[in-house]
Parts: sequence; C-alpha cells; structure tokens
Amino acid sequence: MSGDHGLRSSLPAAAKAIAEIPHLKLTLLGQKQAMLDECQRRAIDPSQFTLVDVPDVIGMDESPAVALRKKQDSSMYKAIELLRDGQVEGVVSAGNTGALVALSRFLLERSPGIRRPAMCAPLPGDGGDTYMLDLGANVDCKAEELVQFAEMGSALVTCLKGIEAPRVALLNIGEEASKGTELVRQTAELLAAEPSLNYIGFIEGFDLFTHKADVIVCDGFVGNIALKVCEGTASYISRQLKGRFRRSWYGLISGLFVQPLLKNFKDDINPDEYNGAALLGLSGVVVKSHGGSSKKSFYSAIRHAAKAAEQDLPRRIAQQLTLT
Amino acid sequence: MSGDHGLRSSLPAAAKAIAEIPHLKLTLLGQKQAMLDECQRRAIDPSQFTLVDVPDVIGMDESPAVALRKKQDSSMYKAIELLRDGQVEGVVSAGNTGALVALSRFLLERSPGIRRPAMCAPLPGDGGDTYMLDLGANVDCKAEELVQFAEMGSALVTCLKGIEAPRVALLNIGEEASKGTELVRQTAELLAAEPSLNYIGFIEGFDLFTHKADVIVCDGFVGNIALKVCEGTASYISRQLKGRFRRSWYGLISGLFVQPLLKNFKDDINPDEYNGAALLGLSGVVVKSHGGSSKKSFYSAIRHAAKAAEQDLPRRIAQQLTLT
Repeated sequence: MSGDHGLRSSLPAAAKAIAEIPHLKLTLLGQKQAMLDECQRRAIDPSQFTLVDVPDVIGMDESPAVALRKKQDSSMYKAIELLRDGQVEGVVSAGNTGALVALSRFLLERSPGIRRPAMCAPLPGDGGDTYMLDLGANVDCKAEELVQFAEMGSALVTCLKGIEAPRVALLNIGEEASKGTELVRQTAELLAAEPSLNYIGFIEGFDLFTHKADVIVCDGFVGNIALKVCEGTASYISRQLKGRFRRSWYGLISGLFVQPLLKNFKDDINPDEYNGAALLGLSGVVVKSHGGSSKKSFYSAIRHAAKAAEQDLPRRIAQQLTLT
Repeated sequence: MSGDHGLRSSLPAAAKAIAEIPHLKLTLLGQKQAMLDECQRRAIDPSQFTLVDVPDVIGMDESPAVALRKKQDSSMYKAIELLRDGQVEGVVSAGNTGALVALSRFLLERSPGIRRPAMCAPLPGDGGDTYMLDLGANVDCKAEELVQFAEMGSALVTCLKGIEAPRVALLNIGEEASKGTELVRQTAELLAAEPSLNYIGFIEGFDLFTHKADVIVCDGFVGNIALKVCEGTASYISRQLKGRFRRSWYGLISGLFVQPLLKNFKDDINPDEYNGAALLGLSGVVVKSHGGSSKKSFYSAIRHAAKAAEQDLPRRIAQQLTLT
C-alpha cells in the first residue's frame, strides 16, 4: 500500500473493489496501524480485508538492486512472496516500477521460454482496445525480446478477446522499411519471419488510438515515454479547455453545459488510468498501477488483476505461447 | 511543393504568407504547369511568386541515399541548392524528412563544431513554449550528439527569447539518476558537467506541456514518436468529444455552444502544426513542415522560416555556440 498518494487512494479503492467485485478477497500489506487509522478516518470497515503488518516500504527512488538485496521486509517483497506461495492469486502495486519488475522476476517463475516479462496495458481506441507493450519493464531491449513481447501480447489478446490472429504492429517513426533504429528494423525482420504472428508492419505514434492494430510492440523506454506523453497531452488539453471556458461569458455558459460531459474525461483517455499495466510472462498476476493513482485508477488496477486471476490468464498465456 | 497534400495546401498557404508577412518573397519549386493550374483553380495570382520548373520529386518512401545520388532534379534538391547559393534565405518543405536532412547536411555548411543538425520545434505550454529536439533527424544518437542538441536548443532560446540561461532537461522515464537507457544516463553525466548549460535534470513525458524546461533533449527516434503521440492523443480526444456531443440531445445542445471554442483547437495543441520544425546546426534556414500539412500549418512553417531568416538565426546560433 504505497505509491505517491499512498493509503488515501488505495484504501478507498480497495473498499470499492470489495463492494463491487464478486468473490474478491483482498490482502493489504503495509503498516497495520496506519491502515487502521486511515480506515477509521474514512469509515471503512477494516475487517473486510486481511491486513498484513509489514514495517518497511520500497522508496520510489530506490534501485531494483537495493530492493532485491535489502527490502525483504517491504510490503512489495512480501506481497510477491504471498503470490509465489499461492496465498494470493494476484498482486497490485502503485509502487516503484523497477523494484516491482525485479522482485517479480526474482521471486516468480517465468513462462516457459520467456526471457523478460513485459508490462502491457490496453489503450482505448475507435472500435476497440489496442494492447501495448513494453511500457517500462525493459529499458534496453534486444530484437528477440521484442519478438517475445509480440508473442505475449498476441497470446493475451487471443485469451481475452478470442481473436485468433491478433494484428501485431511495431512502433516506429514511419511506415517504410528503411525507417527507424537498427533495433526496430531487426525486430521487423524477425516478426515478419515468425509464422505464429499476424505481423502487419510499422505503426506510428498518431495511430495509438485508432485501433489499426490489436497489439503494439516497442521497447520499455519508448513505451513508457509514449504512455506518459499521452497523459501529458490529455492533461494539457483538459487545462486548456477549462481556461477557454473561463475566459469569456460565452465560455462560462458553455462550460456549465459541458462540465458533465468532460467530467472524468481525462481519466477515460488516460491509458495508464484506463486499466493498470499487467506484467506478462510470469507464473502469477502482477499489475502495476500508476504511481500517482487516484482512487478510480487504483480500483481499475484491482479489477484488472481480479479479472486476470479469475480467468487464469498467466497459465493460459503460457499455454498459448507453447501452442504457437 | 510536395508533401501528402501537395499543392492543394501549399499554394494557398504561400498566397496567405505573401499577403500577410511583410517583405516576404517566395520562390516555389515544382512542376510549373501544375502550379499554374492550381493557381487558376484557386484564383491565386501566380505572378506574386517566383515559379521554378523542376520536373522531379522525391517520394515519401525514397531513402536518403537515393535522394542524394539520383534526385538532383527534384524540387527539394534544387531548393536547398538555391539556399546554398544565397538565392533564397530559407527553405520550407513538407516532403520526405530523411531526404531533407540528408540533402541539407550534404549541400549546406554545418555550424562550427556541430556533428549533426537536429530538428527542433516549440511545444506550447502553461506560461511559455518549450523547445524540443531532436524530432526525427537523428535516429541513432551518441551522448555527445545529444549534448550538442542541448547546446543548439539553448542557443536558439537565448536568441529567440533573450533568456540567458535556458533550462535544459533530458527526456527520460523517471526523475531518478538510476532511470533510463545507458545513452540517457551517459548524456545526463555529460550535460551536468557542461558549465555553459543550465541543465536541470530529467523530465518525463507528462511534462512536455508544463513549461518546466525551456529545452527538452532526446534522440530523434524518441522525439519523433513523442511528437506523433501528442498528435494522436489530441486527435483521439477531439473525436471522442465530438462523439459525446453527438450522443444525446443534451450533448447536441452543448455541442452547439462549444463548437466555436473547439474550432481549431486541435491545430493549436498539435505541436507539429504549431509552428514547423527547424533544422538547427546548419548555415541556412531549413524548416520541415508536417507531411500531412493543412494550409494553416504550412503557413505556420513559412512564417517560422521567414522569421528565422529575418532574425538571421543560423548565424546567431552559431555565434552563441562559439561564445559559450
């Protein structure tokens, strides 16, 4: 129970999740007294959760190496241990991404053949979602790893949507074969040669929300920047619109009319808040929620994890990967 | 006169520029008959331009190498030759970016010490513009080159805004020193050690429009993707808003009110249409306009180039670079 907003958003989100998601059981790890205090402040009944008292927390600026070596008593470490030992079916965290990836890789089994787990989230779009990966788990990637991301994304879409041959595209700065970095061009060749994939070629940044592909593949550095640029653009537009509505009497009247339509609009189109990012390629369900998560977005991440666990996604993705 | 929309947008933009920008003279290169026909169709007086008949054009999918070797008779090649020979003071193109960069590097002198020119454009933001580079001229970069981009961006902001020590930030996926690719971390060390720069550290994708920095540095692959993601997000939001306004009677009425406020909003926040991207580090003014430029955005690119030429920006940036 950490992240930038800490208990203030995660506890109400947990209470909402218990109320709304059937059969859900939630174990909350953190400083027990702080959790109890926050429950009292918000009139949330703590007995509906299993509270596990964990004294330590991994700071947002601590390196993955430190998390691995020195943070066995942190809430994140303990949560992933519970997952490894089968005591929970999924983990949701709004904490340090690097640490979450490192601990998951260290403590959980990887799907057969998978070299590096990747972070994947759906983006909304005209007519359907597009699943994008990697969103930040792997900063420096090799072409073979990007191909595995494509395979995992494709398997995920097949499991979730029943689409037999999901359209896989590679994020690039142009659609022509000559465009892009050495890594992207190498990856394109491998993807095109992979019969189990329905590879449709390069896709550009302006097509993230047009549903031209079911899966968009990129390295974690580019993916994380792209995701945050979406967020920054949406925020800026929202601020600009508000400013325009404020600047004139005409705008003020229009603003009153439009307010209900714009309400939560930013949340809707913010892909990170849209659903939480799942770490694919592991034996268990690990969902990363945005560090600055609101109650709404943390709830989405819990719902996402619950659904993935209920559908036994890690096993099904692994199975799908072996099949193709 | 090429680009995806061709003469349909560039000719009206040129006419608007001649009418509105004082002392501007425009030389248009392309197939003369096609230009004359388009002028007639649109009741534009062709005698206000210098028309240069050039038979060939560089296709959007042709490689820079082909442009260099085989396209001496193309409009882009001829335009940059005119610039080199001092017959024009700036070039604007909506054509193939790779070819424009390659031809500019080949035909024009570089500013002293500069290894690779970089593409730079202003992003609007709360309280002021942020200049971002590289936006696609250099796909695979070295740390030393990114430092030069920082120096060029900083010199540009000093020339344009009179800011003595512009705040320079490096685009990354986190603010902590341990974050990012090897390239980004190496670059950060070099930037911090460079006394002529006011380096303020890493910046994330959601801060592109918050004016936390005057200059944002990244490699051309990441920069180009980021720019196009801005565009895609803005487009998607615009489509979504329209959809919402259409879905209910309440929305329809609100839409009528809001229409005038949303008009051109997409253009305003689309950073590529915002002003055109300048190729810095060369002896002449070269401005790249978006391939899919509308009349409005192509006009912005012409205005941008005219202003840069009037202010003698290439020489002043070069001077600024030698000073620091």
